[in-house]
Amino acid sequence: MLRFALLALALVSSATGGSAQTTPADIVAQAPPGDWTAIPADSLLVMDLAPDRAGKPRRIVIQLMPPPFAVGHIANIRTLARAHWWDGTSINRVQDNYVVQWGDASEKKPLPEGLIKVPESAYLAPVEAITAAEAVTHHSDAPEDAMLSLLQRAQAGNAAGAAAMAGTQSESAPSGWHDRDSYAEWVEIHRGWPLAEQGGNFWPVHCYGMVGVGRNLSPDTGTGAELYAVIGQAPRQLDRNIALVGRVISGIEHLSALPRGTGPLGFYETAAERVGIRSVQLASELPEGARPRFEYLSTDSLSFAHYVAARASRKDSFYFQPAHGIDICNIVPPIRPAKG
Amino acid sequence: MLRFALLALALVSSATGGSAQTTPADIVAQAPPGDWTAIPADSLLVMDLAPDRAGKPRRIVIQLMPPPFAVGHIANIRTLARAHWWDGTSINRVQDNYVVQWGDASEKKPLPEGLIKVPESAYLAPVEAITAAEAVTHHSDAPEDAMLSLLQRAQAGNAAGAAAMAGTQSESAPSGWHDRDSYAEWVEIHRGWPLAEQGGNFWPVHCYGMVGVGRNLSPDTGTGAELYAVIGQAPRQLDRNIALVGRVISGIEHLSALPRGTGPLGFYETAAERVGIRSVQLASELPEGARPRFEYLSTDSLSFAHYVAARASRKDSFYFQPAHGIDICNIVPPIRPAKG
Repeated sequence: MLRFALLALALVSSATGGSAQTTPADIVAQAPPGDWTAIPADSLLVMDLAPDRAGKPRRIVIQLMPPPFAVGHIANIRTLARAHWWDGTSINRVQDNYVVQWGDASEKKPLPEGLIKVPESAYLAPVEAITAAEAVTHHSDAPEDAMLSLLQRAQAGNAAGAAAMAGTQSESAPSGWHDRDSYAEWVEIHRGWPLAEQGGNFWPVHCYGMVGVGRNLSPDTGTGAELYAVIGQAPRQLDRNIALVGRVISGIEHLSALPRGTGPLGFYETAAERVGIRSVQLASELPEGARPRFEYLSTDSLSFAHYVAARASRKDSFYFQPAHGIDICNIVPPIRPAKG
Repeated sequence: MLRFALLALALVSSATGGSAQTTPADIVAQAPPGDWTAIPADSLLVMDLAPDRAGKPRRIVIQLMPPPFAVGHIANIRTLARAHWWDGTSINRVQDNYVVQWGDASEKKPLPEGLIKVPESAYLAPVEAITAAEAVTHHSDAPEDAMLSLLQRAQAGNAAGAAAMAGTQSESAPSGWHDRDSYAEWVEIHRGWPLAEQGGNFWPVHCYGMVGVGRNLSPDTGTGAELYAVIGQAPRQLDRNIALVGRVISGIEHLSALPRGTGPLGFYETAAERVGIRSVQLASELPEGARPRFEYLSTDSLSFAHYVAARASRKDSFYFQPAHGIDICNIVPPIRPAKG
């Protein structure tokens, strides 16, 4: 991905004079259909809240991560969804600039059979496990050099990109988002997901909208029955301390705009404040015509590389001083409803 | 500040065995009274919205930045507040994971006399201007080595800190938040404010809760009549492109939990959706007994250094893997109502 990214940066930076008005949104709008990857129906969790005061429906769609990330927790989440376990539960906690959390407020609802107990080691994914999982899934976003590690791929790309950039206005290209992260040696967007790395192990990053598994004190890792979504500045101190399982890709405003809880940690103090959950189900359980369908801009596409470069160095009309850098949680991988 | 920070890190890291349970909140609670600095009443902007559906008051308090930051815009804001210009205006835009914006929706309300037109050069503060402003204000938080630049102070601290850390468990100390920022060569919290630096120029950072001045296309910099607050992941691409003037220190939930606007850029599409502003005034205009009073944990205190170190490497009971790093926007300088 970085190989393309750096090429794109070179293109963008050498074309500064002519195409200064291109916005990230323009790049996304102009991406060819082949640059978009469909999200499988069994990776979409559809959560319907009770309607709002005006009677309007409130639907939230969560994309679950692909293997090898949080495999055990995501198996549990599919089991819980198929058992309709969340139907009739509620949103119980809304802490400003932090998280919205939902599950069984009574903490007494029996869990379905067959849930897996996950060890803390599952917070990390060695690069070999990522490569192996990609070889199995035949994902359309799979890179041709699938036998290389993510970091090796990136390093190979670095060399190629550096060569491609020789003689261009490299000093005006955005730089540093991969290795100027405050929490990890390296960060990247891989197959649409924000990942961080240290010593060959990767983990997903707590960006805005990411969904994780509530737990009790370590070594407990939670079952997946208690979930939360990030609604503020990325709480990266939670990375590697808690399982991330996916992210909200539609309807986050139904969570982020809820009244903040006034109890400790933002828990609602009364049952009346809680927001009812009508149902949580996998899109694959819905009749074919009723399934929400989404696609994301493929990580290894040139469009994505251009998008990142443009976001890292905004030169469109509002901007006076391009940043020449970007935080991984400000990249916001493009996702849209799929047509047809 | 860094001098103390690194010392504190050394202390914290060498004491890992014994005091593993100390939370950032514990450190703040135990800070001696002398580590707190009062915020002047003419630096507090008090915004009262119309009461909510349940009739509850909604008060937001904004702390304005000290000189030399945004001096022209802040003079305008004081002029607007004294003219009661915002009374009867409204919140007009709420864009998820971005900003809440308020001002005159009609764009026809005449502005008061005496507003200053500010140039784009005011987005940056040279270090000499910061030092000069501190010498004038006699702020209780002023460092003893006020004649040194912020970066020189930091570098002197670095050397002292490095010496102090020799022989301690430095490898387990958090590191890198000052110079692993994606948007700047250097970041620090100075007199309670998040600042970034490049080439000796400093600028405030768009962290959660920061308040800035809406504007039209460059070279317009806005008057200060149209303001916004950040309610999501720090939109750092706005740094140096727009004037930051302060931050919300109380009541941000009255902004961040508002319904999102459904128009372009999150503007409300109908007048009925807008949230009325009853009044905006400086705390210094209120009768003495009615003034809200706040204080912040002084940047140059040992308590603050401990607080940053603890936030950067959480070891309290919930945490399994300390991050050993922190983003400047995750530091969240402690501010509390002042007693007495």
